[in-house]
Amino acid sequence: MNKSDLKDYAVVGKPIRRVDGPAKVTGKATYAGDLLLPGTLHGKILRSPYAHARILNIDYSRAMKLHGVRAVVTGRDFPGVRYGFMPQTRDQLPMATDKVKHYGEAVAAVAAIDEDIAEEALDLIDVEYEELTPVLTIDDAMKEGAVIIHDHMDTNIAASSKMHFGDVEKGFKESDYIREEKFTTQRVSIGFIEPHAVIVNVDNSGNVLIQGSKQSPYITWRHFCRAMDLPLGKVRIINPYVGGGFSGKHEALDLDFAAAALSKKTGFPVKIVLSQDEVIAAFKQRHAKHVEIKIGMKKDGTLVACECKMIAEGGAYASVGPFNIVIFATSGLLLPYRMSHFKYEAHRVYTNKPWCGSVRGQSIPIARFAFESLFNMMIDDLGLDQLEVRKKNSILSGESTINKMTVGTAGMVEAIEKLGEMIGWDGRKKKKAPYRGIGIACSPQVSGARMGGHFGSSAVVKVDEDGGVCLIHGGTEIGQGCDTVLAQMAAEVIGVPVEEIRQMEEDSDVAVLEAGMFSSRCTFWAGHAVKRAAEDACQQLAEIAAPLLEASKDDIVFKNKTVFSRKNPGRAIAFIDLVRNAYYTKGQPIYGRGSYSASNIPMPDLKTGEGDVTNAWAFFAQAVEVEVDPETGRVKVLKSVCTRDVGRPINPMLLDAQLEGGTVFTSGQALYEECCFDEKGRPLQNSFLDYKMPTVMEAPENEHFDIITDDPNGPFGAKGAGEGSNGTTLAAIANAVEDAIGVRIKDLPITPEKILAILKQRR
Amino acid sequence: MNKSDLKDYAVVGKPIRRVDGPAKVTGKATYAGDLLLPGTLHGKILRSPYAHARILNIDYSRAMKLHGVRAVVTGRDFPGVRYGFMPQTRDQLPMATDKVKHYGEAVAAVAAIDEDIAEEALDLIDVEYEELTPVLTIDDAMKEGAVIIHDHMDTNIAASSKMHFGDVEKGFKESDYIREEKFTTQRVSIGFIEPHAVIVNVDNSGNVLIQGSKQSPYITWRHFCRAMDLPLGKVRIINPYVGGGFSGKHEALDLDFAAAALSKKTGFPVKIVLSQDEVIAAFKQRHAKHVEIKIGMKKDGTLVACECKMIAEGGAYASVGPFNIVIFATSGLLLPYRMSHFKYEAHRVYTNKPWCGSVRGQSIPIARFAFESLFNMMIDDLGLDQLEVRKKNSILSGESTINKMTVGTAGMVEAIEKLGEMIGWDGRKKKKAPYRGIGIACSPQVSGARMGGHFGSSAVVKVDEDGGVCLIHGGTEIGQGCDTVLAQMAAEVIGVPVEEIRQMEEDSDVAVLEAGMFSSRCTFWAGHAVKRAAEDACQQLAEIAAPLLEASKDDIVFKNKTVFSRKNPGRAIAFIDLVRNAYYTKGQPIYGRGSYSASNIPMPDLKTGEGDVTNAWAFFAQAVEVEVDPETGRVKVLKSVCTRDVGRPINPMLLDAQLEGGTVFTSGQALYEECCFDEKGRPLQNSFLDYKMPTVMEAPENEHFDIITDDPNGPFGAKGAGEGSNGTTLAAIANAVEDAIGVRIKDLPITPEKILAILKQRR
Repeated sequence: MNKSDLKDYAVVGKPIRRVDGPAKVTGKATYAGDLLLPGTLHGKILRSPYAHARILNIDYSRAMKLHGVRAVVTGRDFPGVRYGFMPQTRDQLPMATDKVKHYGEAVAAVAAIDEDIAEEALDLIDVEYEELTPVLTIDDAMKEGAVIIHDHMDTNIAASSKMHFGDVEKGFKESDYIREEKFTTQRVSIGFIEPHAVIVNVDNSGNVLIQGSKQSPYITWRHFCRAMDLPLGKVRIINPYVGGGFSGKHEALDLDFAAAALSKKTGFPVKIVLSQDEVIAAFKQRHAKHVEIKIGMKKDGTLVACECKMIAEGGAYASVGPFNIVIFATSGLLLPYRMSHFKYEAHRVYTNKPWCGSVRGQSIPIARFAFESLFNMMIDDLGLDQLEVRKKNSILSGESTINKMTVGTAGMVEAIEKLGEMIGWDGRKKKKAPYRGIGIACSPQVSGARMGGHFGSSAVVKVDEDGGVCLIHGGTEIGQGCDTVLAQMAAEVIGVPVEEIRQMEEDSDVAVLEAGMFSSRCTFWAGHAVKRAAEDACQQLAEIAAPLLEASKDDIVFKNKTVFSRKNPGRAIAFIDLVRNAYYTKGQPIYGRGSYSASNIPMPDLKTGEGDVTNAWAFFAQAVEVEVDPETGRVKVLKSVCTRDVGRPINPMLLDAQLEGGTVFTSGQALYEECCFDEKGRPLQNSFLDYKMPTVMEAPENEHFDIITDDPNGPFGAKGAGEGSNGTTLAAIANAVEDAIGVRIKDLPITPEKILAILKQRR
Repeated sequence: MNKSDLKDYAVVGKPIRRVDGPAKVTGKATYAGDLLLPGTLHGKILRSPYAHARILNIDYSRAMKLHGVRAVVTGRDFPGVRYGFMPQTRDQLPMATDKVKHYGEAVAAVAAIDEDIAEEALDLIDVEYEELTPVLTIDDAMKEGAVIIHDHMDTNIAASSKMHFGDVEKGFKESDYIREEKFTTQRVSIGFIEPHAVIVNVDNSGNVLIQGSKQSPYITWRHFCRAMDLPLGKVRIINPYVGGGFSGKHEALDLDFAAAALSKKTGFPVKIVLSQDEVIAAFKQRHAKHVEIKIGMKKDGTLVACECKMIAEGGAYASVGPFNIVIFATSGLLLPYRMSHFKYEAHRVYTNKPWCGSVRGQSIPIARFAFESLFNMMIDDLGLDQLEVRKKNSILSGESTINKMTVGTAGMVEAIEKLGEMIGWDGRKKKKAPYRGIGIACSPQVSGARMGGHFGSSAVVKVDEDGGVCLIHGGTEIGQGCDTVLAQMAAEVIGVPVEEIRQMEEDSDVAVLEAGMFSSRCTFWAGHAVKRAAEDACQQLAEIAAPLLEASKDDIVFKNKTVFSRKNPGRAIAFIDLVRNAYYTKGQPIYGRGSYSASNIPMPDLKTGEGDVTNAWAFFAQAVEVEVDPETGRVKVLKSVCTRDVGRPINPMLLDAQLEGGTVFTSGQALYEECCFDEKGRPLQNSFLDYKMPTVMEAPENEHFDIITDDPNGPFGAKGAGEGSNGTTLAAIANAVEDAIGVRIKDLPITPEKILAILKQRR
């Protein structure tokens, strides 16, 4: 990033250290597992040992006789309650009633005076099951005469989507070169460090207080209220610190419902902290996908048409799957390259495995993996330059896609150019050694998606009578740097140091509107709201300052804790004196409010796929260098270079961290991870010992560069960016492996076994 | 109250049941003593056994050796820290350092893993004292060569005040009848049921969380921050339910400082719950007062001049005493009767007794006791009609006092007339029996006093996306009905039922500006802020409704959960639909804000006594009937009739309860209570067994009537009123006792011993 790009900002764009750092590194940060309320009981959940079975009877009379047990609840305590992410598929129950549909599904829960007693009581609950044939694969699910998982349906297809823009047949006719391939991606676990945890209190007026480890507490809140048929005002959700989310902690979960029901039954708060084995074996995972993709291009590399069929294996419940296969998958195909013809078909199928839904990057990494892999193969087939072809096809600022997604600024071309410079591209990078390879990939990243009705963000900036600033927003600090970035924006507007901005935990009674923390929303959406709230507070103060400074209120500047007119900067008043004047002379509290909804953009049409979910897209180019060990087949990612147009990074250091994290996270799917099940649908992994995720030992060296484009729709020009490298890393690694060993592996993960088999075959 | 006076209000003016009732009667309400945080330690305070002594040494090494003790703090842990209510007299220390100045003053505090160990550790702290002569009475304090309590002073007079309006000498010359008397009132305890309690956590960034039993949490907050030299933003105070305050729980107290220091030292939250014996023996009491008063009147009863000298014995620290003797005492003399000449002198003296400050009604009850007693005697002396003379002198709407206190509406005349009607007054009420008597008294009540800088109130009304309403205000529900009255006002504006308004506990990070709950402020100040915040929310909604209803936004009406134009009431939209439109179509959260500061009224001049602390005064007339038992000397209050101009009561049922409570409370000072000390200044009472307060068994029958005057300065016409009967009851009982036995008792309490002595002497 050039220094000249820094404008006149005091803190925006600066690599400020994270505001939540001290609390976290000293162990003082309070997580859900640390919380206690007077009289707290401890809950445990009994989970199904079968992937598919009918529940014939549950007898918990022996459990209730155990000393210290206070209550047991089962699915019968939730009559008629169904919930789920999408209005069209509310297929989830707080606890199974008639049937369990995946291993680890909740069937009962116990509250006791301590955790050990609750655990012991689980063994005293007698559940009679009748085993059913489990449906475990896409083929199982879609074949003629398949076992049907949801009794009310006559198919295992939860949702389907078809769309067609332009005329794909015509496009392929006009193409000089067409190629079609099939890629498969596997189920992976999310792998946050803090397991799900919650403490719930239901008071005798039926008011519910939920404090849990929630990535998007307002999603949990809305899900819970809708499921339990409660007005939002009867439920208050307050969020403690969260130990990672990666899209795994949006929804209301079985433990939330169980704790609430147990609290209501006992009259005491109930706390449930899951173990990692419950989380890994029974909770949300990333969809496994079959992707058939066909691309047509001119012989100069110009992209003409793309056709894609995607089938997502999503486990027992639909979650956000139907949205995922429509919006995120297609936007990950339709950007960042211009194309005139596009045809798409997708199905999201049920199986008797843990449910799948949103996971860091949503479907964009899968779509980009398929597209950039095939694209790369075709460019090579045609003997063209990988970078030049990508540049040639890249969308430009102000263009829109064939399905009417509007791009504000797009620095894709410049990002690719800079990437070439940074990796010393010269048609093709010279191999440093045998079994080394470079892979390139590009990706768009949505700046936060609008989802359904409650899509906005809002914030309040309260200035204390002694000049302190309290920022109240709905953004959740899940490690991504939300609190730091939002504090920077507020500090920039108000002209005070970041350290003087304090922030409250999210509290549904206080914050006013927030959709949640997903799809790289925070900086763009919550950032807009915070900026506007801070501006509103300054506006109120400017009105008081204007007569004191004999200036127009529109000329008032807030900077370095002083306030002055831009026309006469020499005459300034201290910020604190202005605030005191407001409070003590005018008797006026300073309470700024702001919100953002992008309501000018129409919601995308889920049937046709036309429209957009946001009004800004960020762009990423990544090159990774890998080394393959021909003896072991092991792939090592040596280096990652990422160039990016995020409009303007509010905190480039935190963005680097997000993107480096995203690269490591996604390299797990590329190389190591896969959720495995036995023939009965029982998971084979239930801890991070069995389930290999990349650690810092597998992290590559990283380099970054910002193309500053100052998106006019973004706060301080910023676009959403946190998941950007998730979109590029899968394909970049796959392309690099091919570059290293000369053979394309199309099914993930690229394990040593697969590589050794190829190398063996070739010898 | 006439039905015709109810205007078109849906809930304002209605006797709605208290919203905090269910939580309180079912025991579910959480008080400070119920709170726990993870790792909470328990604190106890070591208190001085001497009223006046020098501390020579404190050795707590033995205490630290006790298993389970985590920390001990003493005055040395608060270097340079001084605090107090008034800027001019910050004479209080968190714990005594060199000298203890009253029995029970804190000298050390212990934090341990449980209360018993903390208690045991107190006995292991060795404090070496050198006893000093205690100063116990006004005479002790003011005599030549008195022992000086505060080393930095050369007198025991904490503050003095003199004022003179008109020309008192001239006034007396013009009077036909002058009489002068001396009255004395005693120290009384406050007597709230819930003892002081707090839990404090200081995190490793130095952020302090205080949750305690606080009547005015923002006063505690400001005191604590100022004392500890912390920005307000470093301290967050959240208030649980409070078990009564009566002005006893405004300030930061020794336990708050002790818990904070212990938490900082140990790294864990520290909870301290006092015992009633600590509260009764060592905490705030009402000043004892000597009042010399001289009144001059015409022979037709017209009041001409008044001169008054008041000396307040206030214990070891000044607290709010200096303000008390200036503002409340004089406004309690200058209203509710018109007078042209007024002279006043007051002194507030230190003694070695527990400190005195604000107590329910402040100095108004004492001022009215003296004035209405002497006034009554003089009216009788002249053979005039008690009611007629009071009516003749009563101030009228729109008049102002000689010191420029402005009266908006004044229904004093009508209140007295109605009182006469209700008690069957006919020049003098016929005695029903020997030893029965009727006493009359009138009083003004301030509608909340502005004090110092931070005098305002503010509120936020947040409308949820499903139409629920969250009301955030700084008012504290201390039993007075604050939450109910404020909910009624918000409900009235928004047109929803009171049950649909939910309220948050006070939280300094959320609420924006509140002075505190004192001097009957809540309805008037917080009420204004709540009404404005609700109106602001409706204004935002009206802008959205106007085009939908094809109406002007100024014509939009919110009523019965529907919204319509007053010009076309037939065409309405449901409130919930309008809210959904705001959130889901416009993406606009509804967040109304409001504040009130009465900043148009200049602060009173503490030197001259000119000016006013509020812009509305309520007026009360009370008649009590007593029966004296000539055998035992015991006085029984049989009946109380109270007529009142409170502008418009928002909830007449809760106001009745406040005034009945005030009558019973004040009858304790009139008849039963006195804090007694031995010759060393050690209290003789330390429980409600030793200290006799009136209970429901002593409560009289009550009748009430409202004179509706709709004060233009009040929200919905309302004025502050909760302490109204405190102003009348002392004098009314004293006047009734004289009526019953024919002799005036001028020193309180009117005990059976005093009456028997008089009856015996007369026989």
